[in-house]
Amino acid sequence: MASVEQKDKEVIKRLDGMGETLLKQIDKKQNPAIELPVRSLNNIYFDQKSKTIKLGDKTSQRQFLNVAHTRKFMQSVLVAAEIKKVIDEKATVSIRDLYYALKHTIEGTNENTFEEQGESDPIIEDIEASLNLLREELHLAASSKGVVVGNMKIKDGKDTIDLTRMGSGGWGVPSNVEPERIEFKDIDADYILFIEKDAVWKRFNEDQFWRKNKCLLVTGRGQPSRAERRLVQRLNQEHNLPVYALMDADPWGMYIYSVIKQGSISLSYSEEKLATPQTKYIGLTVKDVERYKIPKEVTIKLNQLDVKRLNEMASYEWFKKKEWQDEFQLMKNKAVKLELEALSKKGIRFISEEYLPDKIKRKDFLP
Amino acid sequence: MASVEQKDKEVIKRLDGMGETLLKQIDKKQNPAIELPVRSLNNIYFDQKSKTIKLGDKTSQRQFLNVAHTRKFMQSVLVAAEIKKVIDEKATVSIRDLYYALKHTIEGTNENTFEEQGESDPIIEDIEASLNLLREELHLAASSKGVVVGNMKIKDGKDTIDLTRMGSGGWGVPSNVEPERIEFKDIDADYILFIEKDAVWKRFNEDQFWRKNKCLLVTGRGQPSRAERRLVQRLNQEHNLPVYALMDADPWGMYIYSVIKQGSISLSYSEEKLATPQTKYIGLTVKDVERYKIPKEVTIKLNQLDVKRLNEMASYEWFKKKEWQDEFQLMKNKAVKLELEALSKKGIRFISEEYLPDKIKRKDFLP
Repeated sequence: MASVEQKDKEVIKRLDGMGETLLKQIDKKQNPAIELPVRSLNNIYFDQKSKTIKLGDKTSQRQFLNVAHTRKFMQSVLVAAEIKKVIDEKATVSIRDLYYALKHTIEGTNENTFEEQGESDPIIEDIEASLNLLREELHLAASSKGVVVGNMKIKDGKDTIDLTRMGSGGWGVPSNVEPERIEFKDIDADYILFIEKDAVWKRFNEDQFWRKNKCLLVTGRGQPSRAERRLVQRLNQEHNLPVYALMDADPWGMYIYSVIKQGSISLSYSEEKLATPQTKYIGLTVKDVERYKIPKEVTIKLNQLDVKRLNEMASYEWFKKKEWQDEFQLMKNKAVKLELEALSKKGIRFISEEYLPDKIKRKDFLP
Repeated sequence: MASVEQKDKEVIKRLDGMGETLLKQIDKKQNPAIELPVRSLNNIYFDQKSKTIKLGDKTSQRQFLNVAHTRKFMQSVLVAAEIKKVIDEKATVSIRDLYYALKHTIEGTNENTFEEQGESDPIIEDIEASLNLLREELHLAASSKGVVVGNMKIKDGKDTIDLTRMGSGGWGVPSNVEPERIEFKDIDADYILFIEKDAVWKRFNEDQFWRKNKCLLVTGRGQPSRAERRLVQRLNQEHNLPVYALMDADPWGMYIYSVIKQGSISLSYSEEKLATPQTKYIGLTVKDVERYKIPKEVTIKLNQLDVKRLNEMASYEWFKKKEWQDEFQLMKNKAVKLELEALSKKGIRFISEEYLPDKIKRKDFLP
């Protein structure tokens, strides 16, 4: 495994490459230009081989001597230079820090380098996509809000963190979980349970579900951050751990599942390193309502927005599988959705002691 | 310190007391009634002695034989009984779980016990207020999203968690941090830094600021949850640790500070156990802009909503101190606000290596 230093060296080399190309162009008295992958919808597709959302191979040029490009060209060079500085200083900064660090009025003009963060963020994404690096590898910290516990140790710098000894809390996932930073040790787990909701994660953690059932418990507290997704992807790929997603039976929960599994359009350029295509959907489903005799009173009526969202999702390539089409159809027919907490109607520990073990035993997953 | 069992016994006793009162009334053929503190605005005040927002001593009766009360009376008894059950089962549930567990159609009628969680939540608050217990003591889990690191160990059940060895992550604060659950060990810290933003917390944690500066770093990731506030309050009260709040220089950051310090109106009935009146505001302030020569470009123009909020806040009793009135006035005069990340303009580590140590050294706080 590369050390942090080796990794940084490699990243700096790629950044230097970008700069050297520009210098050569200037030496040859050419119009300096940066070649960038096109990140618009018409260059994004679902890749059947990797089973993730991906960026195509269309590129475009950002030229210095083109008035329509000049501002963005200047911004791109500024961002690349600042990233190099951050790496040289062995620091990590947020994309908001980066924006503020670079914002200034250009001497002798009234022009600001950036007017708002909405200008610097897409430039960062351009650089990520063009160098084929995650922003974490560029020492940019994304937000992370999830926690993890279970039968595993984490080696992070000089610290070894025992995830079986986190009390009633958990280890707050940092934003950078790349292999040169985070190593997994002593994994004694048969699978990963990726739980949508913090309250449900707490329910499972309180009873140390992970101990009895030999697993890891992760929550992203709603839509997971990049870090939680990357962590799960690495555990899946490097240690062959199956991933089961436990979400609300509603369009939002199912959409979060699809982001964990194949990624999102907005991060298409990074999904190969974030998505976990082997993830399976363990629940909840509307089908569960009948099988587990969940009383009608704790289901929620579908609203118009839900139906609209379901119809959209049914048209996505990655939801074309029969099992999903059937589930969407059933949800529309019954016109109900259902939250994980609704299982509390069947008893405090029904979800952890009956529902989930039964689903796993019967391999009752959606693909 | 009480054990979990002793504490639960005490809580059950109070719940039983509630039930016994009702039984006695029924025996005497009286109209069963529950005495509840009034939680409306006219019974909420800022207590000059405790320096927290507090509930007054007005109470009202919720009577069974009063058609305007009957539904809520029934709900109150259901919620109290379910809480007792949860404690008996040694479990913790979320308030959403509780709602679902209790929701059902009353036999022989079309009436549901609860229509939505908006009906059960205020009943829970009634019971908290009436028994003078935190919901955590009633085994109800509130959400918690913060993390903590620093020179301290946490004893949580059988686990001892060393907060100096959390790598680049932190310990995810659980929802219940009451003394019978969470013990503090080996504290070697001179103060607590309560940071509004996760990205800034990460900046301080990356450089192990807490090691060099002997402190604890807490963030609630925006408006902190009850758990983070309670944790900080306990550390302040039990270990006499000063608390410094590091927030954006804007009405929202200053409001969050005021909640940490004296509490919020909506939780007035619990603020004695959540608020930390000794908290000091270390920054950012608009005054800082001049002192630290922060370039104008990284400040943000105040908008109308900000001004309206500032005027409201200026009228709050707990912001009447001259220092705060001056700061509000200066903010309005300069018409700027400022985010913590803006300090990145002065250098990646300016905030942790220059700004903060200087503020502490000069004791440049707002009260």
